[in-house]
Amino acid sequence: MTVLSRRDWLKTAAAGSALLAGASASHAQCTDPMPAKWDETFDVVVIGSGFAGLAAAIEARLAGASVCVLEKMRVHGGNSSINGGIMGVPGTPMQKKQGYEDSPELMAEDMIREGAGMNHPDKVLHMCREALPTWEWTVKELGVEWVQERVSQEGGHSVPRCAILKTGSGSEIVNKELKKLESLGVKPRLRTYLERIVRDGDGRVKGVKVREGYRFPDAASGKVKYICARKGVVLAHGGFGADVAFRKIQDPKLTEKIGTTCQPGATSECWREAARIGCHMIQTDWIQCAPWSAPQEKGMGIALFFAQGAAAMYGVWVEDKGGKRFVNELANRKVRSDAIMVYLNKGGHCYAVADAVGTKPMTVSRPGMLEKMLERKCVRKYETLETLAEGEKINLEGLKASIAEWNEAVKAGKDAHFGRYVNKHAKPMGQGPWYVSEMVPKVHHCMGGIYTNMQAQAMDIEGDRLIPGLYAAGEATGGVHGAVRLGSCAVTDCIVYGRIAGREVAKEKPWC
Amino acid sequence: MTVLSRRDWLKTAAAGSALLAGASASHAQCTDPMPAKWDETFDVVVIGSGFAGLAAAIEARLAGASVCVLEKMRVHGGNSSINGGIMGVPGTPMQKKQGYEDSPELMAEDMIREGAGMNHPDKVLHMCREALPTWEWTVKELGVEWVQERVSQEGGHSVPRCAILKTGSGSEIVNKELKKLESLGVKPRLRTYLERIVRDGDGRVKGVKVREGYRFPDAASGKVKYICARKGVVLAHGGFGADVAFRKIQDPKLTEKIGTTCQPGATSECWREAARIGCHMIQTDWIQCAPWSAPQEKGMGIALFFAQGAAAMYGVWVEDKGGKRFVNELANRKVRSDAIMVYLNKGGHCYAVADAVGTKPMTVSRPGMLEKMLERKCVRKYETLETLAEGEKINLEGLKASIAEWNEAVKAGKDAHFGRYVNKHAKPMGQGPWYVSEMVPKVHHCMGGIYTNMQAQAMDIEGDRLIPGLYAAGEATGGVHGAVRLGSCAVTDCIVYGRIAGREVAKEKPWC
Repeated sequence: MTVLSRRDWLKTAAAGSALLAGASASHAQCTDPMPAKWDETFDVVVIGSGFAGLAAAIEARLAGASVCVLEKMRVHGGNSSINGGIMGVPGTPMQKKQGYEDSPELMAEDMIREGAGMNHPDKVLHMCREALPTWEWTVKELGVEWVQERVSQEGGHSVPRCAILKTGSGSEIVNKELKKLESLGVKPRLRTYLERIVRDGDGRVKGVKVREGYRFPDAASGKVKYICARKGVVLAHGGFGADVAFRKIQDPKLTEKIGTTCQPGATSECWREAARIGCHMIQTDWIQCAPWSAPQEKGMGIALFFAQGAAAMYGVWVEDKGGKRFVNELANRKVRSDAIMVYLNKGGHCYAVADAVGTKPMTVSRPGMLEKMLERKCVRKYETLETLAEGEKINLEGLKASIAEWNEAVKAGKDAHFGRYVNKHAKPMGQGPWYVSEMVPKVHHCMGGIYTNMQAQAMDIEGDRLIPGLYAAGEATGGVHGAVRLGSCAVTDCIVYGRIAGREVAKEKPWC
Repeated sequence: MTVLSRRDWLKTAAAGSALLAGASASHAQCTDPMPAKWDETFDVVVIGSGFAGLAAAIEARLAGASVCVLEKMRVHGGNSSINGGIMGVPGTPMQKKQGYEDSPELMAEDMIREGAGMNHPDKVLHMCREALPTWEWTVKELGVEWVQERVSQEGGHSVPRCAILKTGSGSEIVNKELKKLESLGVKPRLRTYLERIVRDGDGRVKGVKVREGYRFPDAASGKVKYICARKGVVLAHGGFGADVAFRKIQDPKLTEKIGTTCQPGATSECWREAARIGCHMIQTDWIQCAPWSAPQEKGMGIALFFAQGAAAMYGVWVEDKGGKRFVNELANRKVRSDAIMVYLNKGGHCYAVADAVGTKPMTVSRPGMLEKMLERKCVRKYETLETLAEGEKINLEGLKASIAEWNEAVKAGKDAHFGRYVNKHAKPMGQGPWYVSEMVPKVHHCMGGIYTNMQAQAMDIEGDRLIPGLYAAGEATGGVHGAVRLGSCAVTDCIVYGRIAGREVAKEKPWC
């Protein structure tokens, strides 16, 4: 893709929108002072060292660009490193082995339906079509290891399609990406904070102003440096789930009372900076809470693998007072988080319950995980339903009725009460020991963000034209997940569009 | 309110957010070139001549400021002039006369519940507390005439509280505001388009760059002029409901296939410009469709007064194929619009039906309106239900059952099917002639916008501090209505916060 000259922009703007023809092209965009000199120069500067940033860096490097990756924290990977380790992919060998029929179109349909149609359809379909080749890329090019026996199902998917990382954590992908990148001669620079995206008066992004030696969260720490980006900057800075001040402005319900699964560095500075230099920010108020995290665990924890991978698929979720099922355990995350909030607001508690048979598949995909959960007491084990109900203070009769109801559904292949997907491998519950975890919603993911085109180019709030020299991918962008992200689709989004960003930025003609 | 010095900003930023202390205060904000000279100077420049802009202008003028009001179209009032003429107010004499109990707190509760808690609570409560004094202001200071016999009920309100303008149109308020403003020596300038908000390197908004003699929608038309705003600029530019390109980016579902109730000038230029100069834009993706407008009418039309004021309150809404009620006719606008969309997407049609008794109150509040509707054929009249069903191609048996169901609800005081509020004045349906209109959702109102504080000051995306010299009110702002605006609350929001903006901007210390 060649860089548009100012004349081209005028033509594009005129062609694209009569409303703004001639208006702003001749005026200075938001103009930061250009540095007297650049301290360093690369073809491509990538902000963020998670799934998307590393994928972009790898592809840009493979295309021959010189690349630097900047990470503000003192560890790599941001939320990607603590990610739950599932990737939504239609048509993997594992999914086929289990006999599920799927397609990119079906996955796109699921994402758009649950996303309330806020998703940009072309973006979604392209991502879903690239999902399988991208998954194959993680295997062949990165050596990422996936569980071979099964796929799992996150809420809102109409069929199980979540490939499961063997290690049970996104750090598997991050580490393999880092390894690949290192083999290409690039190591992310830690503690390097993006202070300014340098966008010149001609509208092009030409580099960044950073602080090296930054100590989160002190924005005055570190030493200023200007890094020139001859081809472009890729923004892959993730979300702001840990930033209470910013998230409360977008959605006042997300007060400090609600925890987060995010690492502390998931804050808003780059969101603000992207907006400041003219990025069109969309749907920033759609902030997802994860429903299934345990209250005693800081952050995401591990109990969720039980609550989702065992109980939501093969068990039941109940509220304590009545012991009743209160939601479709496989509904999307917003439906489930909102439903749990209703009970929390009444002073209640919500629990995920599964029996030995329902818990087994999780132990096969994630060996050792159950032991860890029991050790940490974020999942408890009881010999009988009676002792479980007593120990957890859940209404026993109600709980028994809920289990009977689900067992009916398993028999009928249809959940009359909540319409939950009945997995063909599901068995009626009844085999002790029984397992249980508590669940509280925690702020988890930001669906909105920078509006990008199909080439991962950041779009300008002015004139709906692109911002030359600026790309974005991953949680930092909006328009893929819409109102509600389906679990496991973040990994897909990050790697698909991260790779696109890397390939596209490498094609730019350098500005200097 | 005194203007903060740069030192004050540094202190404020440092106190407010450790994350950004010291970071950006020393850097130029988005800097537009300052004009060599200003062509004109006023204390206050108001953008937009609708409810909010005119209210701000009046208050600023009364406080002694010199004021100019700029309107880009060749007529005043934007959407305010074609507004449906109801204002949500708790505790008017008319409401008390009809025996309804209400309070600002109850109104705030309704707004926040239906707004899905996306509303900023302080903003909402303050607005609701100011609603009655503001309504009284329209009577005493402006001479606005309100229907004395009754109030109506829009969807989502838990009690009827919508004061009704005698003329049935918001132009009553706009014209009275214009008159008041003219008595204070100010006339809005038409065909004057805001091209740039001039924000200087010290961060203060100092004026505007406009085009006089602008011919919508040609952004290159007219002659450039720079107007200095010594105290401040008030942005009251309304929404972007008529801007298909912009609205599709926020919510892809709102394609060109969906009509709008908005006047053609409801476009996005000021939204983009506000974002460009650093305003924190929130919830821009929450765009309301009105459920009750007739397809044969361009824009909002008048059939809505029947569909809402007669059928939703005292009749039924049904889908054609089954003749069945398909939604709570008094649910909020999103619930109803989405429900109608479901049928439209299946190739169906939705109708509002009321009998003679149910239609009468509307004819009392809006004399002559029914005749106009019948003349335009956007409402049809039939002697019997049978001829209505035949003429409109609605399932007769289903329609009869729906009416019977509603009559049961009226008798019981409780709608078992949909939980609709049963008005105490409601009578069972049965008295011909019968009236009917068709309904299609049309894009209507933008709930999101510029994030402002309680003094109507625009907040900066950087540092959560205010933008000195910049105010905003009305549909251009976000955070009052949240996810879903309750009908009649726009007038309240516009006038309450418009007046606050006017009073506050007049207190500013001039920058020159």
